[in-house]
Amino acid sequence: MNSIPHRSAASREAAVSPTGVKVNDEFWSGYTDLVRNVVIPYQYEALHDRAPGAEPSGAVQNFRIAAGQAEGEYVGWVFQDSDVAKWLEAVGYSLQIERDPDLERRADELIDLVAAAQHPDGYLNTYFTIKEPGKRWTNLTDCHELYCAGHMIEAAVAYYEATGKDKLLNVMKRMVDHIGTVFGREEGKLRGYDGHEEIELALVKLYRLTGEDRYLKLAAFFINERGQEPNFLREEWERRKRRGHFNPNVQDRLDAAYFQAHKPVREQSEAVGHAVRAVYLYTAMADLARLTGDAELEAACRRLWYNVTRTQMYVTGGIGSTHHGEAFTFDYDLPNDTIYAETCASIGLIFFAQRMLLLEPEAEYADVMERALYNNVLGSMAQDGKHYFYVNPLEVWPQACSCNPGKHHVKAERQAWFGCACCPPNVARLLASLNRYVYTRRGDTLYANLYVGSELSDEFGGVPVRITQSSELPWSGSVRFAIESERETTFSLALRVPGWCPGMTVAVNGERVILSPDQMQGGYLMLKRSWRGGDAIEIDLTIRTSLVYADVRVRADNHKAAIQRGPLVYCAESVDNGEIVAALGLRQNAAFSERPASDLPGGAIAVETEAWRSVSETSDLLYRTEAPTRENVRLTAVPYFLWGNRGRGEMTVWLTAQSE
Amino acid sequence: MNSIPHRSAASREAAVSPTGVKVNDEFWSGYTDLVRNVVIPYQYEALHDRAPGAEPSGAVQNFRIAAGQAEGEYVGWVFQDSDVAKWLEAVGYSLQIERDPDLERRADELIDLVAAAQHPDGYLNTYFTIKEPGKRWTNLTDCHELYCAGHMIEAAVAYYEATGKDKLLNVMKRMVDHIGTVFGREEGKLRGYDGHEEIELALVKLYRLTGEDRYLKLAAFFINERGQEPNFLREEWERRKRRGHFNPNVQDRLDAAYFQAHKPVREQSEAVGHAVRAVYLYTAMADLARLTGDAELEAACRRLWYNVTRTQMYVTGGIGSTHHGEAFTFDYDLPNDTIYAETCASIGLIFFAQRMLLLEPEAEYADVMERALYNNVLGSMAQDGKHYFYVNPLEVWPQACSCNPGKHHVKAERQAWFGCACCPPNVARLLASLNRYVYTRRGDTLYANLYVGSELSDEFGGVPVRITQSSELPWSGSVRFAIESERETTFSLALRVPGWCPGMTVAVNGERVILSPDQMQGGYLMLKRSWRGGDAIEIDLTIRTSLVYADVRVRADNHKAAIQRGPLVYCAESVDNGEIVAALGLRQNAAFSERPASDLPGGAIAVETEAWRSVSETSDLLYRTEAPTRENVRLTAVPYFLWGNRGRGEMTVWLTAQSE
Repeated sequence: MNSIPHRSAASREAAVSPTGVKVNDEFWSGYTDLVRNVVIPYQYEALHDRAPGAEPSGAVQNFRIAAGQAEGEYVGWVFQDSDVAKWLEAVGYSLQIERDPDLERRADELIDLVAAAQHPDGYLNTYFTIKEPGKRWTNLTDCHELYCAGHMIEAAVAYYEATGKDKLLNVMKRMVDHIGTVFGREEGKLRGYDGHEEIELALVKLYRLTGEDRYLKLAAFFINERGQEPNFLREEWERRKRRGHFNPNVQDRLDAAYFQAHKPVREQSEAVGHAVRAVYLYTAMADLARLTGDAELEAACRRLWYNVTRTQMYVTGGIGSTHHGEAFTFDYDLPNDTIYAETCASIGLIFFAQRMLLLEPEAEYADVMERALYNNVLGSMAQDGKHYFYVNPLEVWPQACSCNPGKHHVKAERQAWFGCACCPPNVARLLASLNRYVYTRRGDTLYANLYVGSELSDEFGGVPVRITQSSELPWSGSVRFAIESERETTFSLALRVPGWCPGMTVAVNGERVILSPDQMQGGYLMLKRSWRGGDAIEIDLTIRTSLVYADVRVRADNHKAAIQRGPLVYCAESVDNGEIVAALGLRQNAAFSERPASDLPGGAIAVETEAWRSVSETSDLLYRTEAPTRENVRLTAVPYFLWGNRGRGEMTVWLTAQSE
Repeated sequence: MNSIPHRSAASREAAVSPTGVKVNDEFWSGYTDLVRNVVIPYQYEALHDRAPGAEPSGAVQNFRIAAGQAEGEYVGWVFQDSDVAKWLEAVGYSLQIERDPDLERRADELIDLVAAAQHPDGYLNTYFTIKEPGKRWTNLTDCHELYCAGHMIEAAVAYYEATGKDKLLNVMKRMVDHIGTVFGREEGKLRGYDGHEEIELALVKLYRLTGEDRYLKLAAFFINERGQEPNFLREEWERRKRRGHFNPNVQDRLDAAYFQAHKPVREQSEAVGHAVRAVYLYTAMADLARLTGDAELEAACRRLWYNVTRTQMYVTGGIGSTHHGEAFTFDYDLPNDTIYAETCASIGLIFFAQRMLLLEPEAEYADVMERALYNNVLGSMAQDGKHYFYVNPLEVWPQACSCNPGKHHVKAERQAWFGCACCPPNVARLLASLNRYVYTRRGDTLYANLYVGSELSDEFGGVPVRITQSSELPWSGSVRFAIESERETTFSLALRVPGWCPGMTVAVNGERVILSPDQMQGGYLMLKRSWRGGDAIEIDLTIRTSLVYADVRVRADNHKAAIQRGPLVYCAESVDNGEIVAALGLRQNAAFSERPASDLPGGAIAVETEAWRSVSETSDLLYRTEAPTRENVRLTAVPYFLWGNRGRGEMTVWLTAQSE
């Protein structure tokens, strides 16, 4: 870890996410290694249009053209620059884990190129440089200019934190200065904001790194202007004669709710519109609420959190019920088959959860973070790191994905990651920065949010302390914290009691801690004492395979149950259970047995239970008065995140469950 | 009834649908009266742009402009002419039931206008006359020219049969002569066919009326050319530079299967593409197979029938599983919520069933006809005759229809019928011609396909016979046939044993007929004897409320049952059962009680049973390990065709069912 060489704004905050954490975990390190060894190098090739079989990205070439180093046409989406940014950000996190001179050299070259594409006035965006010069800032609704800037700011911060090199940081500071000349409440400036939120949370990162208030103020401006009347997006749309970038036809209406701009953010209570945009906004709102102590904004964050996680979230941590606009629909509408549950949206939910944890130490935020991480996000990536789901369904009938157009967006197999450039690098940057999600710190209390093997280096009461966590999650519940410290120092270790955990024992230095209710605060077990080197805390989290039921207002899950074991949601696949997994039924009181899943990677555990299968009597009638018979079967379920690893087949998370 | 004043081709056929039938039924006459008294007059106003609150149809005005009697722009769809045609056809059937000089005068005036819009060469189509003159026959794929001609032929035949007036008939004969100069295998003619099948079945009607073989030959040409290689639609699309009428952009591909033109019709085995087009084609194929004795074509009809009714038909007789292209998807894919099940498609299925009955007397064809009629079709129309469903869902959550874009096509309430002009007049013409579906006749056997109160006048062995059927269906199973005849004559009365009927007793002149297996043929009970005036046959069909189960391959209905009583499918609505009808559960062995549904129209019977409802424990968690509790409830189900008559609410046909 590089230390940050100047006084960071972070040190003034009540709660922070410690950066001096290094993941070293039997389960997770495989994924972070995969990101470093496979995903980042492969994506580099893809960005340079050299990945075999991949469609040309054009992203690097666009920068070359914009920098005057090459000639040609702009290639790709209007937000193509963000692919370069996300790659650089992932590189930043990766270099924080482990320096790599060769990777750093490639990143430096790319940063030189990005810098060369910057205009003298600070402006940076290859689309508007190459394709629509003179049209800067005329279509904030669709054109992602501030979004691309936001991603490049995140990259600049991460790269600086990793290497101490400030070239990209200075490029982006100049770009932000330029943005400050364009946007603002002053006469002649645009009182606007981006159609796709992102710059808001990026500016907070820039503020936290530099301590310069103007970055926080600009973030606050974008957040506060959103949804105010007169509506900026609608006025802009009128100026464009009601035509869009993606749809050049005249449109009947502009749906401001799609952009979370239908009302001021402090008045919002329901998650609406494009799911990724929404959670990126909420993340920044929680940041701003924390940093400014804005109680009204904090209340809005809590309401939105509640709405998302209590009424619009799948059991896998997926959000976004419809592919139409990749969007939220409405409370309790969680269809399992026509679902969207985009990978990026779950990643955004993790960002939001982390910021809520910083706002207030409540274990439920970490519960959701863990749910999204182990299930929706992890399930999106194949074990080879080169194939991804963008849509993460809870129910798949492969033929329906092919033959029913309402399910064409659902894929029965992970796709080559370069097919669409948005989710794969998002997974990469999340996994490469997993160390930032393990703990939060508030004063002298260290909250263990994720039980992920790791080493933390921090200081308590002026004493440097190293805490080595080791964890057997998700397969078993043993977790151990070993403390190294030169001398005794007092701090609280707050151990999250996971929502899925029916029982937890804690021992300090081999002595069982008798847990009393007053030790529980916000779902954490508080261990406050004077710690010394050699102290060890051992936790045993009971991991039980259980059925989980949705609130009955979720129509799609009525009379059904999902199987969960520890943090992992399970699913039934046809490769284990035969075709028509929907015909399987669970008995509510049946016991589960566990066994190693030898045909699945990574020491996975499969579970089995006595169940039944409905079988139609032989008849060629589609509808009959004879009920299907029940055959007793032994049902096998495997971790959801590993589904689709054994060929194309049916899968379901929710299964009909009966009490007898 | 008007007799047909010349020797009809029908008399040469093995089987016919007797035209001398008049419906007089306690249940159905209300609907046929509604069509005559409300729907036809109202639609007349709508076609003349005089229906209050309705969008201008433009249909009549288009004819005025085409006839040079008015000036202006073409209004409406490219197939707008067909609305006038369907109205005239419905009028024809209605006048067959009961003459009405005022209605006839209005029809005559409209026919004069249609005639005035005909070109000297016989061509008739207002779109290509007004809007794209010179573009005739250049886009058969999209532009419905032959489709519109087909509907006008059907109108001409029906109007002639009712009134003996041949003006429209002669107009359409001239149009067909013109079509004959354009299409054919000869050099210089188009070897093509319409993107929307319809003219094929219409030409058969024209042939049957006139006995002129060339009409049947032209129908055969269109049927036989379909799907041949080189593919006409694809070549035409190439000539149009891959642009369509509805989508002017260049398209990647033309999906010939959408038009059932992916392979020659005799090689087709699976129902594909637009559902209405498909069943209109199959109807004509069955016609042609019957009239020509084409065994290969007959086999194709049987395969397609089997595919539709054994794998792609909802329990309500709805077909078309997706709104994308209003189309079939694939075997056993019958989602209840994202369903299409267009009213017109079920009507087309009834046409197909009737033609299959003429091809071979098998009661299952009538079973499907009855299923579609009493459920999907009847349910589509409100009791006021002015509101309709185009999409006929089996599961409705009104908020999802509003807030989940994947269900926007599903409406929770019937819409004003003039909103879209395709389904309402189709219902009108079907109900007005219901008399044609009651019986089929093959030699001296009269098959009673539908138990609908009616009077049949026909001749057996040269003796005029009148058979008065009275029926208490669908509410009770008493059916009576009274025979009037001047003298004794021998014929067989074949009584259909409905698929839903667990038991049936028959008495002739008060004496119970002992049924023997050899009296059963193709699902009909054959009563062959010498009948005399005053003979009476009394049937008692056991009507029992039963649960019906789908084949387990229908994933959407696994672990579920529907409630059926006689021919009627039932459903549970929230107005009777409270919100979240999906949380209700049926007990497979529970008895049903019946009661008059005083809040529903027309003497409807509601059924009740002991059931349960899943109730979530009070908790604000979306997912919990505690199973919902079960509350015993008395579940009320009402006939599906009457759903949505008591305000906006939830509805479901399929309910979870358990054996205990």
